[in-house]
Amino acid sequence: MKVLALLGSTRKNGNSEYLVNKIVEGTDHTIVSLAEQHIEPIVDMRHTEEGFSPVEDDYEELVQLMQDHDVLLFATPLYWYGMSGPMKNFFDRWSQYLRDERFNLKEELTKKKAYVVITGGSSAKIKGLPLVQQFQYIFEFVNMEFTDYMIGAGVKPFEIVNDVAALEKADVWNKKFK
Amino acid sequence: MKVLALLGSTRKNGNSEYLVNKIVEGTDHTIVSLAEQHIEPIVDMRHTEEGFSPVEDDYEELVQLMQDHDVLLFATPLYWYGMSGPMKNFFDRWSQYLRDERFNLKEELTKKKAYVVITGGSSAKIKGLPLVQQFQYIFEFVNMEFTDYMIGAGVKPFEIVNDVAALEKADVWNKKFK
Amino acid sequence: MKVLALLGSTRKNGNSEYLVNKIVEGTDHTIVSLAEQHIEPIVDMRHTEEGFSPVEDDYEELVQLMQDHDVLLFATPLYWYGMSGPMKNFFDRWSQYLRDERFNLKEELTKKKAYVVITGGSSAKIKGLPLVQQFQYIFEFVNMEFTDYMIGAGVKPFEIVNDVAALEKADVWNKKFK
Amino acid sequence: MKVLALLGSTRKNGNSEYLVNKIVEGTDHTIVSLAEQHIEPIVDMRHTEEGFSPVEDDYEELVQLMQDHDVLLFATPLYWYGMSGPMKNFFDRWSQYLRDERFNLKEELTKKKAYVVITGGSSAKIKGLPLVQQFQYIFEFVNMEFTDYMIGAGVKPFEIVNDVAALEKADVWNKKFK
Repeated sequence: MKVLALLGSTRKNGNSEYLVNKIVEGTDHTIVSLAEQHIEPIVDMRHTEEGFSPVEDDYEELVQLMQDHDVLLFATPLYWYGMSGPMKNFFDRWSQYLRDERFNLKEELTKKKAYVVITGGSSAKIKGLPLVQQFQYIFEFVNMEFTDYMIGAGVKPFEIVNDVAALEKADVWNKKFK
Repeated sequence: MKVLALLGSTRKNGNSEYLVNKIVEGTDHTIVSLAEQHIEPIVDMRHTEEGFSPVEDDYEELVQLMQDHDVLLFATPLYWYGMSGPMKNFFDRWSQYLRDERFNLKEELTKKKAYVVITGGSSAKIKGLPLVQQFQYIFEFVNMEFTDYMIGAGVKPFEIVNDVAALEKADVWNKKFK
Repeated sequence: MKVLALLGSTRKNGNSEYLVNKIVEGTDHTIVSLAEQHIEPIVDMRHTEEGFSPVEDDYEELVQLMQDHDVLLFATPLYWYGMSGPMKNFFDRWSQYLRDERFNLKEELTKKKAYVVITGGSSAKIKGLPLVQQFQYIFEFVNMEFTDYMIGAGVKPFEIVNDVAALEKADVWNKKFK
Repeated sequence: MKVLALLGSTRKNGNSEYLVNKIVEGTDHTIVSLAEQHIEPIVDMRHTEEGFSPVEDDYEELVQLMQDHDVLLFATPLYWYGMSGPMKNFFDRWSQYLRDERFNLKEELTKKKAYVVITGGSSAKIKGLPLVQQFQYIFEFVNMEFTDYMIGAGVKPFEIVNDVAALEKADVWNKKFK
């Protein structure tokens, strides 16, 4: 199973990245930090005659990566009770590429399995739930299996090492991906 | 009452903009399209010694605008069951400016009243609810009153004119803001 | 269109009942106060050999009423951020009667249209949202259209008369049901 | 630490009960099956002159039990995407006893720690989230700490033994309660 981990955090070595490293250790995987990619916001052209125009950024490589992996692992710290801005811009652009006939994204996504890692403070286990529901609606829309999620407790660097339940879950996922 | 309308849409003359125009008609207001502003994503430096660095973009003007108005009206189409990417980047940067001593944002926000306009297809009345909850957590965090919200039905340009309840609510808000 | 209004409140002349009366005025309707019916809690026998046993209470009449109406209007004050206990017991018993071959409930429900009225204090517009989501999952499960909902502001008797938006929505529904 | 487990299920030896037994094993605890108690629905008398009347049922013993324990463990199967009817009637009656001066319930609840166990089918991890949010609002209202929750996968009797993550979490809680 090939795992594509898409990181939403805008700092290096954060808690969500720590969990992702645990989850993919020893698996066939690719890790991409979305904040380090050049991803333009969507320009909504769905209702225009000319439709979407090609965009000069890194997005098409990401489309290719999604198509080439079996598991899509979305990992984001809870920023203002949602996914990070760079991850949101990443999803918004799906609207463009689901319609782009050079790719096969719409059909390919239905074959993937989605996993979600959210990290945040102690309130994240409750206040991260609208984000879990949002992910559910997203995956349901593209008909992708939402296999599992975890909400880990960690704000300051490396705090996550104290969240035993999150580490155990990371281990369970790791075994499935090997 | 001075109203600052912050638009999240990435197309011109969309349904959320239509509602905003109804809501602010004849009031003392400013409308800003976030997608037309240069807003860099946050770079999370909360846990570093050096802290946040100044960013060369349009954000500081937006901080000033928020401080100078009484009502903050957030209007976004439902993009992948959340606010648009440009609006998300806008909120993420609050983390930086709430800590910036050149401004008084943290205290000023507690005096504002927040209103939210969400537009989307017929399922938005249900599938937009996690976004309403996210806004609630955001406003609660900065101790700002979340006065009211509406979820209007409109995807194609001008469809919103058929949502009588949304138009009526826009009218009620308009009277309050005059 | 025949409207069956099912009231969850445990007091007479409350705010949700007030809205229901506005909504059904002049329509072909039946109003049932669930708290005044004898409704036993479910006894979960799904996984036993003998299955469910007949229960001596008023439930079978309610099943007949649901089958005989086109619109099911569920109205409940927000009790502890959910529907009232009597209304919950009412839904729980669906598990029994969806399996009861003397009735045709499972198929009949797919033809009905569901409307929901929730009333509560000023926080209900936010804190009633999990209940709206619960209703959505319920109606989705039985494949019934969830046409619309409203959350009215009213705790003390007759406070609801100040919620102009709720009264207007009641009027819109009333016109549809006539 | 004294643990009071309140079971919402209406069948014996179900999956939520199985988890509860794991959680309280070897601790100082009391288990109460709410469905086996006589609990009348609330009759809402908050806005009447005479106020609430005494009710002849088992509720006052439950009030005493809550006051006498440190941890309140609420365990319910997901019935129609909410807590069971008997558990809902249990919470509804809080409205009466928080006002009853013979008890000290309002103040005592602020000292308790709440834990929640929800069990259901594979969709419960998502479709149980509105119920988690409802519990959050309930505990917030009475100012009780909502320490943790779990959503276990199990519908048919004993299916829960396959949910390794739930069993591990039960073990972690058990160690805390000993």
